[in-house]
Amino acid sequence: MASPTHRPLGCSASPEDPSMTQTRSTCRWGVIGTAGIARKVVRAMHLARHASPVAIASRNLDRALVFAEDHGLERAHGSYEALLADPEIDAVYVPLPTALRREVVIEAARAGKHVLSEKPVAPHVGAAEEMIEACADAGVQFMDGVMFMHHRRLDLVRERIADLGLMPTLVESAFTFKADDSFLENNIRTSVETEPLGCVGDLGWYNVRMALVVMQELPGLVRARHHEMRGGVPIHTSGELEFAGPNGPRLARFHCSFRHPLRQWVEIVGDEGCLRMPDFVIGSPTEAEIQIETESSLTEGDAAQRCTRERLVVEDCVQEAEMIECFSRIAAGMNPVDPQWSQWALDTQRVTDAIMSSASANGAGIELVR
Amino acid sequence: MASPTHRPLGCSASPEDPSMTQTRSTCRWGVIGTAGIARKVVRAMHLARHASPVAIASRNLDRALVFAEDHGLERAHGSYEALLADPEIDAVYVPLPTALRREVVIEAARAGKHVLSEKPVAPHVGAAEEMIEACADAGVQFMDGVMFMHHRRLDLVRERIADLGLMPTLVESAFTFKADDSFLENNIRTSVETEPLGCVGDLGWYNVRMALVVMQELPGLVRARHHEMRGGVPIHTSGELEFAGPNGPRLARFHCSFRHPLRQWVEIVGDEGCLRMPDFVIGSPTEAEIQIETESSLTEGDAAQRCTRERLVVEDCVQEAEMIECFSRIAAGMNPVDPQWSQWALDTQRVTDAIMSSASANGAGIELVR
Repeated sequence: MASPTHRPLGCSASPEDPSMTQTRSTCRWGVIGTAGIARKVVRAMHLARHASPVAIASRNLDRALVFAEDHGLERAHGSYEALLADPEIDAVYVPLPTALRREVVIEAARAGKHVLSEKPVAPHVGAAEEMIEACADAGVQFMDGVMFMHHRRLDLVRERIADLGLMPTLVESAFTFKADDSFLENNIRTSVETEPLGCVGDLGWYNVRMALVVMQELPGLVRARHHEMRGGVPIHTSGELEFAGPNGPRLARFHCSFRHPLRQWVEIVGDEGCLRMPDFVIGSPTEAEIQIETESSLTEGDAAQRCTRERLVVEDCVQEAEMIECFSRIAAGMNPVDPQWSQWALDTQRVTDAIMSSASANGAGIELVR
Repeated sequence: MASPTHRPLGCSASPEDPSMTQTRSTCRWGVIGTAGIARKVVRAMHLARHASPVAIASRNLDRALVFAEDHGLERAHGSYEALLADPEIDAVYVPLPTALRREVVIEAARAGKHVLSEKPVAPHVGAAEEMIEACADAGVQFMDGVMFMHHRRLDLVRERIADLGLMPTLVESAFTFKADDSFLENNIRTSVETEPLGCVGDLGWYNVRMALVVMQELPGLVRARHHEMRGGVPIHTSGELEFAGPNGPRLARFHCSFRHPLRQWVEIVGDEGCLRMPDFVIGSPTEAEIQIETESSLTEGDAAQRCTRERLVVEDCVQEAEMIECFSRIAAGMNPVDPQWSQWALDTQRVTDAIMSSASANGAGIELVR
């Protein structure tokens, strides 16, 4: 993660790159698959600047037609290939099940389309590497759909982390939601054929990403355990990521589960204090909160002697729209392709793989080679 | 923990027990050792009803005299034996270092004194059992100094846990404070001779106790890791306790450390919601908070659809004074000796031992036999 690709986040306009030729004001989007999450992202395409949702593809043309009608799209395709052959599409959003995504992404890249992929990117890092390489070879952007990376709150969090001391030493996070029985029995997210990473890919992916953003490096060691499986995939997992640090190991602890009520908090701890977000994954579009506590201490068994609490609110930021706008600027040629985004995805996939390996080995420590 | 000793918490006046003969209105307290925490507890003895702090003992008579002068105690003893021989003392509070406590507690019990012991009770469960047996044989109360057990907030928490569903399935907690270099180098809490359990005994004890209170049984399996040692003792440890449950394992996750700023939160999760205390160990004496969140959910990747938040505040409860009053009523003969208190201590010690064993074995699962 110390690679030169890791510049500060964000996609604000950069000086014009002379190598960019075809610049448009709008990215013309195609959507491959009609998953539930696509509805949310297409809404964001309507909201975002420099984006225009144009086409939908489904293997079931009727379903594509209904989706197009519902979401104000011009064209509906009855095959993914047809959409990829559409010359009036600059970028594709791919919310297909994880196990079905690799082939489509590689084809999209070969067709010259920029790719926004739902997460987890792939069932394993090998497939993720293939997808990302295909995009790099074609000169198109690859990005995973971790929306919180694009929330303005994150810039503020990064600034304020610096106030907590030299380098955070601990990140704790939970992302859980309670799936009902029908979900657990029928949803693709508990099928090993479609979503082999289960809750680790669907929820843990965000825990891992946040840990990487905060720690600014890959963990050296990963330990995890699956507490419950369903349909061959984990539905309740917890673990710890160990990071190096000049003063000893730094730690990220995570909990992800389809078995517990909605929780999506993160606590970032440095030498001088703590920063918390009660809703780091899906923040409110109108009011995103950051809680900061500094100078707390314990003296002779007495309560906190001094404690400075602060509450920051970032107003009016729809992170899905920010993501689409960031991506659209690149796909429209207004900003250059940014390798940080594929690097974040790849690093997250590597840690996710290590979590799966550790849990399969009953919590054994899995080393990541840098 | 399903033993009949686990009646609801609390020490409110119970019907007069005909077997109790010597009833006083006040428990006369002796304090054995002048540790920092003793200052806080003696203040509580002055505050609590039915309690009167009378004497202090230290192996250093000058230190005892200064303490007595500072804290308004009648008598100062230059040896523990002298205090234990004092017939005008009903109960002793023992804040000695853990490794030095066993002998004194057993002697105190043999001298007919009720015993309030700082925690961790002992370096290992064998010593704890000896201490507790000595108290049982002498017919005196044994209790460890886990003050939050006596906060009125806990009764409310137990009531409200019932609203979260049948049985909590997850407890996450952190208790940490940042020790300075002088503490880490010189404090008894990082010396294997005095506090062999390090942060696990000093901080993790509270995490474990809260998990036991919530889960209402002993864990079946314990896993933990020490992330940093100092002076032969852990100063940064995390782990997980696995409990049985009718619908699969229930989990308690904990983090304790002398390396991180003050954090003392617990999150209790049931099927229907979450209950949080931001300061479960050392709550404010004027305002102790409980946060409850119910009916949160996630639909098609959208944010929380419904979310009911509630904030309860328990006002004006000094938990140290409540503890002293609870104990004093027993020691003064107003309430009978209550075996739940020694059972809580023993169960906590057993889990603490398992945490140490697991961490010594690189995180291996340690089974607890019931």
